[in-house]
Amino acid sequence: MDYIPLLALLSALAAIGLAAFYFSAVKKESPGDPRMVEIMVAIQDGAKAFLRQEYTYVAVFVVIMAVLVAVFVAPLGAATYVFGAVLSASAGYVGMTVATLANARTTEAAKQGPGKALPLAFKGGAVMGFTVAGFALAGLALVYILVVDVLEAEDAFEIITAYSLGASTIALFSRVGGGIYTKAADVGADLVGKVEAGIPEDDPRNPATIADNVGDNVGDVAGMGADLFESYAGSLVAPIALTAFTGAGITAAEAGNVGTINLIMFPLLIATIGMVASIIGSFTVKGGASTDAHALSKALHMSTNVAMAITVVGTVLAGLWIFGDTDLFENWWGIPVSVLGGLVVGFGIGKVAEIWTSDQYAPVKKIAAQSETGPATTILGGISAGMMSVTASVLLIAVGVLIAYWGGEQAAEGLGVYGIAVAAVGMLATTGVVVSVDAYGPIADNAGGIAEMAGLDPSVREVTDALDSLGNTTAAVAKGFAVGSAALTALALFKTFEEALTKADPTFVLSLNVGEVDVFVGLFLGAMLPFLFASLTIDAVGRAANAMIEEVRRQFREIPGLREGLPGVKPDSARCVAISTKASLREMIIPGALAVVVPLVIGFIDVDTLGGFLAGALVTGFCLAIFMANAGGAWDNAKKYIEAGAHGGKGSEPHKAAVVGDTVGDPFKDTSGPSMNILIKVMTIVSLVFASAFV
Amino acid sequence: MDYIPLLALLSALAAIGLAAFYFSAVKKESPGDPRMVEIMVAIQDGAKAFLRQEYTYVAVFVVIMAVLVAVFVAPLGAATYVFGAVLSASAGYVGMTVATLANARTTEAAKQGPGKALPLAFKGGAVMGFTVAGFALAGLALVYILVVDVLEAEDAFEIITAYSLGASTIALFSRVGGGIYTKAADVGADLVGKVEAGIPEDDPRNPATIADNVGDNVGDVAGMGADLFESYAGSLVAPIALTAFTGAGITAAEAGNVGTINLIMFPLLIATIGMVASIIGSFTVKGGASTDAHALSKALHMSTNVAMAITVVGTVLAGLWIFGDTDLFENWWGIPVSVLGGLVVGFGIGKVAEIWTSDQYAPVKKIAAQSETGPATTILGGISAGMMSVTASVLLIAVGVLIAYWGGEQAAEGLGVYGIAVAAVGMLATTGVVVSVDAYGPIADNAGGIAEMAGLDPSVREVTDALDSLGNTTAAVAKGFAVGSAALTALALFKTFEEALTKADPTFVLSLNVGEVDVFVGLFLGAMLPFLFASLTIDAVGRAANAMIEEVRRQFREIPGLREGLPGVKPDSARCVAISTKASLREMIIPGALAVVVPLVIGFIDVDTLGGFLAGALVTGFCLAIFMANAGGAWDNAKKYIEAGAHGGKGSEPHKAAVVGDTVGDPFKDTSGPSMNILIKVMTIVSLVFASAFV
Repeated sequence: MDYIPLLALLSALAAIGLAAFYFSAVKKESPGDPRMVEIMVAIQDGAKAFLRQEYTYVAVFVVIMAVLVAVFVAPLGAATYVFGAVLSASAGYVGMTVATLANARTTEAAKQGPGKALPLAFKGGAVMGFTVAGFALAGLALVYILVVDVLEAEDAFEIITAYSLGASTIALFSRVGGGIYTKAADVGADLVGKVEAGIPEDDPRNPATIADNVGDNVGDVAGMGADLFESYAGSLVAPIALTAFTGAGITAAEAGNVGTINLIMFPLLIATIGMVASIIGSFTVKGGASTDAHALSKALHMSTNVAMAITVVGTVLAGLWIFGDTDLFENWWGIPVSVLGGLVVGFGIGKVAEIWTSDQYAPVKKIAAQSETGPATTILGGISAGMMSVTASVLLIAVGVLIAYWGGEQAAEGLGVYGIAVAAVGMLATTGVVVSVDAYGPIADNAGGIAEMAGLDPSVREVTDALDSLGNTTAAVAKGFAVGSAALTALALFKTFEEALTKADPTFVLSLNVGEVDVFVGLFLGAMLPFLFASLTIDAVGRAANAMIEEVRRQFREIPGLREGLPGVKPDSARCVAISTKASLREMIIPGALAVVVPLVIGFIDVDTLGGFLAGALVTGFCLAIFMANAGGAWDNAKKYIEAGAHGGKGSEPHKAAVVGDTVGDPFKDTSGPSMNILIKVMTIVSLVFASAFV
Repeated sequence: MDYIPLLALLSALAAIGLAAFYFSAVKKESPGDPRMVEIMVAIQDGAKAFLRQEYTYVAVFVVIMAVLVAVFVAPLGAATYVFGAVLSASAGYVGMTVATLANARTTEAAKQGPGKALPLAFKGGAVMGFTVAGFALAGLALVYILVVDVLEAEDAFEIITAYSLGASTIALFSRVGGGIYTKAADVGADLVGKVEAGIPEDDPRNPATIADNVGDNVGDVAGMGADLFESYAGSLVAPIALTAFTGAGITAAEAGNVGTINLIMFPLLIATIGMVASIIGSFTVKGGASTDAHALSKALHMSTNVAMAITVVGTVLAGLWIFGDTDLFENWWGIPVSVLGGLVVGFGIGKVAEIWTSDQYAPVKKIAAQSETGPATTILGGISAGMMSVTASVLLIAVGVLIAYWGGEQAAEGLGVYGIAVAAVGMLATTGVVVSVDAYGPIADNAGGIAEMAGLDPSVREVTDALDSLGNTTAAVAKGFAVGSAALTALALFKTFEEALTKADPTFVLSLNVGEVDVFVGLFLGAMLPFLFASLTIDAVGRAANAMIEEVRRQFREIPGLREGLPGVKPDSARCVAISTKASLREMIIPGALAVVVPLVIGFIDVDTLGGFLAGALVTGFCLAIFMANAGGAWDNAKKYIEAGAHGGKGSEPHKAAVVGDTVGDPFKDTSGPSMNILIKVMTIVSLVFASAFV
């Protein structure tokens, strides 16, 4: 079964091929009239400029980290670290490029109805989805083959883990930087445009409108893609590294041993199955003449459902094959149970997110009703709802952990944590198609913005709005998988960290006993860090938004005729884009660096404290991530629910209160919340990679 | 030194005597004109009715718990449990009785200026302070003498711990119930009165005004008193129980052993010194003719400073005496260092609270400035500031834990955790005078309300306002001690829980290794619980406030002439009081019961999971407590800062935004936040008391 990495590589290359095919399919469509092209190009230029500058900043950081990895771990590790970082950045760049090509084309297609526009937007998203999944898996398979099979390198598994750390580094900065950008632009555009100047959203007179649309691409497309790249790569590395380090760690040569090889190959096999399943699933998205929301939603759901069903069947068969040898394993079905347990829990967490953030259920309706008594009760309602969703999600994770652990122990004694690790792989196996659907959303959103800015017929906007709203529920499920897998992966990596210390120094025993004072202090510090991180990122959005607000005000003041919309008078959109870019990149540095520096500092002082720190950060970070994401989502949809006519509709007092909730929720759900998962994993992976240097 | 419990008892009786003296001193002052007396009596009746009903509800719970303690622990434990509960409840009742006598008398005295009113309000608060401290210490000393010296009971230290659990039970329900009441009445009165009917605060036409003033008494006086009773008793029990259980636990007869007796007697000695110091400190509060805020503030600060200074000197001397035997202890100064470390950290946490919630410092000014851009930025600013204050507080706690641990280890190897436990004792040794100053605040606040309702000259209100604002900074320091000691006490109790399990079953080894899956699941569940608790209590305030709002609206609608203030037309205040009472008591049950039921359920399923659970709840609960208390305080003072004239002053748009922040902060700082500390400790003490039943 040692040809599985090759299979994985081939499936990944197929995915990349599919992405290329979709890319050309998107590109050959018409981008519409000159005005639309002009807008599209402005968004493209802004997004690319942001990414290029972001990558320049991050490159400095990557180089510093690479040196540290080379010195403290292994020179080859520095190479795989940079490789992971470059692949993730490239996937983000490709995905964002196509998203900014697909937006105007979707607008143009929307003129002919949703049956034409839906598949096009999906194809745009699919380029992102399959590039992310394809690059991540291809890179990992290549690294594995090279480091383990070809070079038989010493410290092979630290080197493989460094690949994942590279991806995590990019993800953290992309999420934080992109999250700050998108919210600063959004808040800036809304506050001055809608509130002060009294012009509608996406109005071409507003200098921040282009920046706002750029933000959707750098935040929701590039940031989200890097996030999923990191999650996917991390989930695959976790069970492999765990297996390698369990006991006292194995070398590359020993990796082929009976039993060990089964455990290492299984996650790669599941990834291969999931990739093939995703490719098949993506072909099921077809348009049709229907404008019925239910039918369109079904088309989109079909792709993930098909992919998931194939993966489930494949997992059972893979279990039968890999764990069927009764000399090595007690029950072949144990690990498949872990994987399926993970899938069910991932669905469950997604469902929790949906229940607490969709206007079809009680929580959002309640927040909307609380808007009747003003913004304060709206805020309290959202906070309470978000906190309550933490309870449901943690109970699900607890059940998931216990099932996955139990399954692992059924396969063979001592494989419990391995079961937890592969449960995360199951959740993310269909990343290709899941990200496709996820990236579809912002493309449809952008298409609507272009329709507005180009002054197209309102019917076009109606079509794009219908498409946009479809993405929401699918995105909730994807979010559930991302968050749930983050908790499981981090737990597995945490255990791997413990094993890695033992490997580095067989006499060293990590005390993770929270009854010990140094572990306890670590636990306390770890619990505090997500609060610090949230505080920093919320403030960062505020400052960046202020920079934007001032610029927009200045333009309205200094450019004659802009506010009145005199013909020929145009805002200086490029300047807004530049300001938002600069502000968000400056603000990204401290929170981003914190995630890497703090565990290193603690680790070099006291490793037991670091163990407690990671545990504390993991559980509190997860709770805060769920709280912030769901509270933010609930406020957003409570506002939309009111806008749809409830409680007096648009312009009423409850609506104003709901807008306050939505604005508070913006950095919650799009900056701080989604960065939290990456934060947890970056800190754990940094600790794992540098474990040997600590002892 | 086995006569120390007797000394403690005597000092406690002296404190109770002082309270009685202050009580009669307050009572003999004039309560003012008939209108003032009428209002005072209405507040009294409402507050007493609430407490009586609350205690009826809680009595049911206490009886159930007592039966459980009798069955699973020891029959005598049931008796001490009930004793602790009754003493705490009685202290709350006495304190509230005097507070509702002192309010109108302070108003009357304020007619002659602050020099007369300040000492009177302080005396009212001192009755509460010395009743709380006196009852708590007297009860504990009595229980100790009876159980250990007289009866030499088996399970002596479980029985002593049950006393503390009784106090904690009352504290939890008082804080939650009182916190819901006070905020429901506050929000109800403000929303309908100020916003809808357009009448000023504390206007006699508003039916909820009496309930609002009742709320100040049941929340800020009775609730706070029960909280400090619990903290104080818990901090004393923790080092005693820890000593008794360390190793395999000692019996009552062995408690007199050389070495052991020193460790058990030291906290009681510190409490005795602190009590005497508090009594001396209380005599320094004198009035004078000055109306200067600085001079008045000095008078109030003087009492705590004197008490603290005496305690510090006493601690050093006590250390020299108790730990001076070089055969038993390596360094006599070790434990005093722990205690002083605790004091410094307690001051530090109080300072952090002050910096983040006083308008003298940057954070509140920044939130006030953020009000310029509306309520959303106000909310985000407060959330960010509250989260940032978590970082500072946790760093201080980490330093405090390490210093206290180090001090303990210097005294003798293995005494590190004991050092942490006595650090909390040091923080709370001067509870008598600290609570006096704390309870002074709501009395001055109530005095202002009475001045308003009775239609006195505005100059009287000015005096009471000046007195009221003085209490704030002292309260911040007291809060720092309460929160800081909670973390240290809980940590010590947590360790004691571990030892108690070993005592119950010597073959049982508690795994607190967060790398084990059951401990980790427990850690996750524990981290989640404070979020659940916060969600429940926030919602509870909302529902109770709604019940109040509807009643006030009904009265304005149905009582002719009420809104216009026709002569002879009075609101039905009693009905508002009854509704708020009923709603808050109903809402108190679920969150209160949760704290007791969840650890019991988990403990009977898996003790390792319970260990992780307690650790997770402790660290996350502390972080949320600090976050909610400081965010709430910051919003409150940002509003006051604007009302004092900044950013356009009262009635401006920034002021409206700040009012939203303040309303969001109300349940944060007065309901959820302060209950969190008790929650943490109740769960730990429940686990400790039932430890033997779990294994």
